[in-house]
Amino acid sequence: MMKERKILLSESDIPDKWYNIVADMPNKPLPPLHPVTREPIGPEALGGLFPEELVRQEVTMDRWVDIPDEVRNIYSIWRPTPMYRAYGLEKALDTPAKIYYKYEGVSPSGSHKPNTAVPQAYYNKQAGVKRITTETGAGQWGSALSFACQHFDIECEVYMVRLSYDHKPYRKIMMNTWGAKVFPSPSEATEVGRKILAENPNTTGSLGIAISEAIERATSTPNTKYALGSVLNHVKLHQTIIGLEAIKQMEKAGDMPDIVIAPFGGGSNFAGLAFPFLRLNMVEGRNIRCIASEPTSCPKLTKGVFRYDFGDTVGMTPLLPMYTLGHNFVPAPIHAGGLRYHGAGVIVSQLLRDQLIEATSHDNLEVFEAGITFARAEGIIPAPEATHGIATAIREAQKCKEEGTSKTILFNLCGHGNFDMKAYEDYFAGKIVKHELTDEDIQKSLSQLDTPIIPDR
Amino acid sequence: MMKERKILLSESDIPDKWYNIVADMPNKPLPPLHPVTREPIGPEALGGLFPEELVRQEVTMDRWVDIPDEVRNIYSIWRPTPMYRAYGLEKALDTPAKIYYKYEGVSPSGSHKPNTAVPQAYYNKQAGVKRITTETGAGQWGSALSFACQHFDIECEVYMVRLSYDHKPYRKIMMNTWGAKVFPSPSEATEVGRKILAENPNTTGSLGIAISEAIERATSTPNTKYALGSVLNHVKLHQTIIGLEAIKQMEKAGDMPDIVIAPFGGGSNFAGLAFPFLRLNMVEGRNIRCIASEPTSCPKLTKGVFRYDFGDTVGMTPLLPMYTLGHNFVPAPIHAGGLRYHGAGVIVSQLLRDQLIEATSHDNLEVFEAGITFARAEGIIPAPEATHGIATAIREAQKCKEEGTSKTILFNLCGHGNFDMKAYEDYFAGKIVKHELTDEDIQKSLSQLDTPIIPDR
Repeated sequence: MMKERKILLSESDIPDKWYNIVADMPNKPLPPLHPVTREPIGPEALGGLFPEELVRQEVTMDRWVDIPDEVRNIYSIWRPTPMYRAYGLEKALDTPAKIYYKYEGVSPSGSHKPNTAVPQAYYNKQAGVKRITTETGAGQWGSALSFACQHFDIECEVYMVRLSYDHKPYRKIMMNTWGAKVFPSPSEATEVGRKILAENPNTTGSLGIAISEAIERATSTPNTKYALGSVLNHVKLHQTIIGLEAIKQMEKAGDMPDIVIAPFGGGSNFAGLAFPFLRLNMVEGRNIRCIASEPTSCPKLTKGVFRYDFGDTVGMTPLLPMYTLGHNFVPAPIHAGGLRYHGAGVIVSQLLRDQLIEATSHDNLEVFEAGITFARAEGIIPAPEATHGIATAIREAQKCKEEGTSKTILFNLCGHGNFDMKAYEDYFAGKIVKHELTDEDIQKSLSQLDTPIIPDR
Repeated sequence: MMKERKILLSESDIPDKWYNIVADMPNKPLPPLHPVTREPIGPEALGGLFPEELVRQEVTMDRWVDIPDEVRNIYSIWRPTPMYRAYGLEKALDTPAKIYYKYEGVSPSGSHKPNTAVPQAYYNKQAGVKRITTETGAGQWGSALSFACQHFDIECEVYMVRLSYDHKPYRKIMMNTWGAKVFPSPSEATEVGRKILAENPNTTGSLGIAISEAIERATSTPNTKYALGSVLNHVKLHQTIIGLEAIKQMEKAGDMPDIVIAPFGGGSNFAGLAFPFLRLNMVEGRNIRCIASEPTSCPKLTKGVFRYDFGDTVGMTPLLPMYTLGHNFVPAPIHAGGLRYHGAGVIVSQLLRDQLIEATSHDNLEVFEAGITFARAEGIIPAPEATHGIATAIREAQKCKEEGTSKTILFNLCGHGNFDMKAYEDYFAGKIVKHELTDEDIQKSLSQLDTPIIPDR
């Protein structure tokens, strides 16, 4: 008799509520501060950028937030996503551990990003918004938002870092296929862009510039709003659909994880899988370890400090209480572009501060080795971001082998690598190197901060 | 209440037998002929290239062939594949037709090809084969076979047309990730390759040359066999897993198709979905129309002749009774590389000759428009090959609208387009043009044939 690899749910099992962990947190996040006055600010500061319902979700204390039927209907294109028992990986590692993964790469754009893109597009549509602007680096978020806007007949304008626009054209074409307009950033479409181009016509752009362009368009054009793909509370809220499904699937498998693992960029991927399991810890007294996996080249959780910092590099956003390497920190150009962010989202930072979650880091070489081990054992070629979660799972499974214990490990396979084969090409060509980042480098970045410090309790 | 989009089966529903349509065909295929003597030949002629069990399957008259548990176990990585009710497409077309599609793009390599790559690798392993060689054009078949060989610890050697090797590196990297060796063809690894390179060092290669290299390696190296990804009977047999699952899914949906559609290259994609439904026609007296969709630039079914012809361009293979445009026919360089083959597999040709199936064709522009309509309505971006099936489904759905009838249409979405974004880029850049192919062009190609004619009955 064959052992079943996949734990599948039916569409009627798609959760009808997202989980808001803030309701259960012992210490609520500190308030954001105005970037200039440095006084606490409320949700009204976000009203120009986002529709009212998303601003409400950003600050809500409600434990559960209803998922509209229209959103669940579009979710049903790819949700519920499958959970796999990783028999192949277990065998390859010769470990007594039981390994499961939740596979978010089955979405049309190939990652977990549409989980929030769809409701963001929906609430904008409800608010009468005609156009949404955003920035994208490698293109995961931009393609997810393009897909979502298409379904609600909203115009989507994506400012894509010129370096990616020129070197990774396929994500751009994907966005075009779903009807989005994609501009290489800096562009002629905005004042910010024109100014930068006038000064430096050959600039390759940056995510910071792209954000500025998207925000300028959103705030200066009628019926236009802005959308962000990670970091913010409402984004994390939407991603909890992952963990809520995963709990049902673990129950169906007659199992429950001892360890839950997810890659960490801004936090939405990790939050999505881990928050519903953290609820079981806080409400039912369980003791599930939730581990965030970050690259050693961008170690905000494992080597950063907890203090107020800007969300962007220019210093225009509100000051947020978070683990940060400093908003001027420039990570090495690793292929896991989605993890190259200087700070951690507010909720996740507070949870780490309160020791309710753990964090670990992996070197660039280790994650590619983990990714290839996984691809050969399980078939699916993972995105470079996703390899970080795999690396942590392998490390924990190897510990089980050494200790002779059988733990149950669940990780978030947040996306496939079909658009990242250049990264694997570089690996096979020996071009992937360890990015040494010294404590001095980190101290140098942090020493430039003059933002408010948060005292130890 | 939400309408369910997906019709899912569990792993225990994976069929345990493939269906061999030859057992039920009213007229059995004519025998292959020796390329030189032109006398009928038996299966022993294939023994040097393929392991015994695959040769047996090539000629078996058994109606059902057991699927080994080891093969079903690897199938379970992605099978059963989902069937979708295409509510989005129905709405976009405003048609009374009910449209379903079977989605084979969920396999690790992104198409239906692993359905046969896995059993082919398995039977080779059983026979003690250490290395399998094959050719690949754009890379779909090569990557499927690499994936399959990886699982059975067989070395995989892929001869990839140099033009693709240089211009489409990502499929190559995918194969490397699964452990395969990929050679640009012509290569220095074979006598054929060295000879061609000596004469023309800058050649971009061809599928014909790549086949010759793969066969030379298989026949001149110990413990080495060759594998083919379409055309042959055993390949079609393995692909029937698609239609067998689809029948279960249609039954689960409480429906049954009036029309079954699939793209047509060598025939394995079409055979895979259609043969089990044709069985219902032949055994249960149903009247399901099965339509093969081909490009107007390579119209062997709609404009070719039924006669003996070679399977390759050089004229080394046995002569096969098939619909053909002539083995020297060179199709226009459309993006749907998998459909650029001059002939149709033997079984499908006999079925068309006997009017048990239908064929239709679509222009290059029409299929891209269909693909984009589909991507916007359903989310999934289809491979260029797959757009041909979509185009036929749209045509039939529009007929339903004109006639005011509600037919049930099922098509095979044989692969995603994640590795084909260059094709969509060309479309958006206005570079996709109609490829005019006149009847004179076809007659010119056919007039060069001196192979045996098959008289009308």
